[in-house]
Amino acid sequence: MPKIYAISLNPAIDYVLKFKELKLDKTNRPYQTDMYAAGKGIHISLLLNELEFENESIVFLNGHFADFFIQDLKANHVKYQKFSTNGEIRINLKLIDQFQTECSVPGPEISASEFEKLLAYLKEVIQPGDYVVASGSLPSNCPTDVYQKIGIAVKQNEGHFVVDAYGESLLQALQTKPFLIKPNLDELEQTFKVKITTEKQLFEYAQKLIDLGAQNVLLSRGEKGGVLINQHSIVTCGIYQWGKKLENAAGAGDSMLAGFIVKYINTSDFNEALKFSVVCGSATAYSSRIASRELIDELNQKNHLMETKKLV
Amino acid sequence: MPKIYAISLNPAIDYVLKFKELKLDKTNRPYQTDMYAAGKGIHISLLLNELEFENESIVFLNGHFADFFIQDLKANHVKYQKFSTNGEIRINLKLIDQFQTECSVPGPEISASEFEKLLAYLKEVIQPGDYVVASGSLPSNCPTDVYQKIGIAVKQNEGHFVVDAYGESLLQALQTKPFLIKPNLDELEQTFKVKITTEKQLFEYAQKLIDLGAQNVLLSRGEKGGVLINQHSIVTCGIYQWGKKLENAAGAGDSMLAGFIVKYINTSDFNEALKFSVVCGSATAYSSRIASRELIDELNQKNHLMETKKLV
Repeated sequence: MPKIYAISLNPAIDYVLKFKELKLDKTNRPYQTDMYAAGKGIHISLLLNELEFENESIVFLNGHFADFFIQDLKANHVKYQKFSTNGEIRINLKLIDQFQTECSVPGPEISASEFEKLLAYLKEVIQPGDYVVASGSLPSNCPTDVYQKIGIAVKQNEGHFVVDAYGESLLQALQTKPFLIKPNLDELEQTFKVKITTEKQLFEYAQKLIDLGAQNVLLSRGEKGGVLINQHSIVTCGIYQWGKKLENAAGAGDSMLAGFIVKYINTSDFNEALKFSVVCGSATAYSSRIASRELIDELNQKNHLMETKKLV
Repeated sequence: MPKIYAISLNPAIDYVLKFKELKLDKTNRPYQTDMYAAGKGIHISLLLNELEFENESIVFLNGHFADFFIQDLKANHVKYQKFSTNGEIRINLKLIDQFQTECSVPGPEISASEFEKLLAYLKEVIQPGDYVVASGSLPSNCPTDVYQKIGIAVKQNEGHFVVDAYGESLLQALQTKPFLIKPNLDELEQTFKVKITTEKQLFEYAQKLIDLGAQNVLLSRGEKGGVLINQHSIVTCGIYQWGKKLENAAGAGDSMLAGFIVKYINTSDFNEALKFSVVCGSATAYSSRIASRELIDELNQKNHLMETKKLV
């Protein structure tokens, strides 16, 4: 059975404060606070743990707050491999009242020599057929070709490369012909510096990513579900009357990716993988953090309520 | 020469994020972040260090973030004695754009046995004539008589007790006849549950604190300077054309207290102590954090521009 690696070059601690009403220019007293290890790669590991699928989070972090982060990974049974940064791990804010106000802080730099250690590690551990997911924002001063370099290392070991990024770092990574990428509408617009207004345009720009090298494009469309595009077909998969309320969309895209890969490994069926990716993404969107196995199993029962159609 | 102890039952890490404009319900990206050990007791130690006056900060803290706090104390050459809490030290937020939005989080509990260790420590180290300053908010579930108990321990060793608090914890502490307290208008109002509208009322309520046990009341009045009230007199001390801009008022009251005590120790003159307290408080208000020795010395040259008048 292959193994899944999730790389977080720029993880974060999320500091969540809940208020009755957050008022600017005042001293506010939250009624609840929480703090935990976060970032796209961590979300992927948490979901894979729910699915009991063997995985490892590769994290770059340092400093006093790194101990807290690592202890949170351990508490959540996330297996990890640690590399160092040139400064403290960042602490991002989620200030929640009737709105959600976020503060996203730049991460510390990674030295070229530490990044080389990552590439050497990948070349050492990746077995043919393993999956490596590189996702999330890049650390400050990080060259845009780092995802490309990771992709080359993964390919050399005959692994599958998955990248969740946008803009220049995605375009450069496409040259390695990654197995899967997962943009949303915003990320397509930012990558191609266009405004997309119709579904036709959306699919056209997704297909451009295929032309540029992606083997499969998993388009995430929030409550509209997902679309899988490759050289042969466009398959849409929507949610129909699941009777659940959106709780917190953070991590939904990461859960889609994780669910897609697991189901594809188990079935080699792209349509089943797409359906299960929508189940996992939705389950997380219906949860305050990452979806539980119970909710995933419950929604998975409902897959007869899903629609898939082949467009091309 | 006596020594000054500053007790922080509920210290905090301040996490400062600066924005061009903080927008609710959006993802905001700060252009600058900073994080440091904070709290009234720490401010007092920092100012005493600037004045090169021997002092010790007594801090209650625990957890992963405590290491960061302690390292920041060390970097600022703050001598400290550490006691434990039942949870992580809190992280407060200061979100600065054209406004200053603060988020103040409750601190962890202190066990009764750990508080007893503090009292035992005070009885062991306090020498006759030493000063002990207890200031700041109380940890969650902390009984309101903790400052009173600290005052009793200080008195038993013939030390001078200084308390910067308000409400029930102040009223109970007054029974130990503290050497000095430092309320502002808000704190007087909250302690006596009244609305104070005139200067006459302000002085009347300050005198009530004398009647209840305080030996000296240092009233801080922001840019209006300070007032010293005791059984014999009311002396006001204002700022006249110092030509400086308010930068960050946080820590100004703590600087007043620290400056007052140092000058009183050196001169035994209440009026000199009051003048210097206004110099130190103003210097901090004109600084982004705690005043430097240079600015204190510069403003201290200007004391001929200050007015003092004896009212009673």
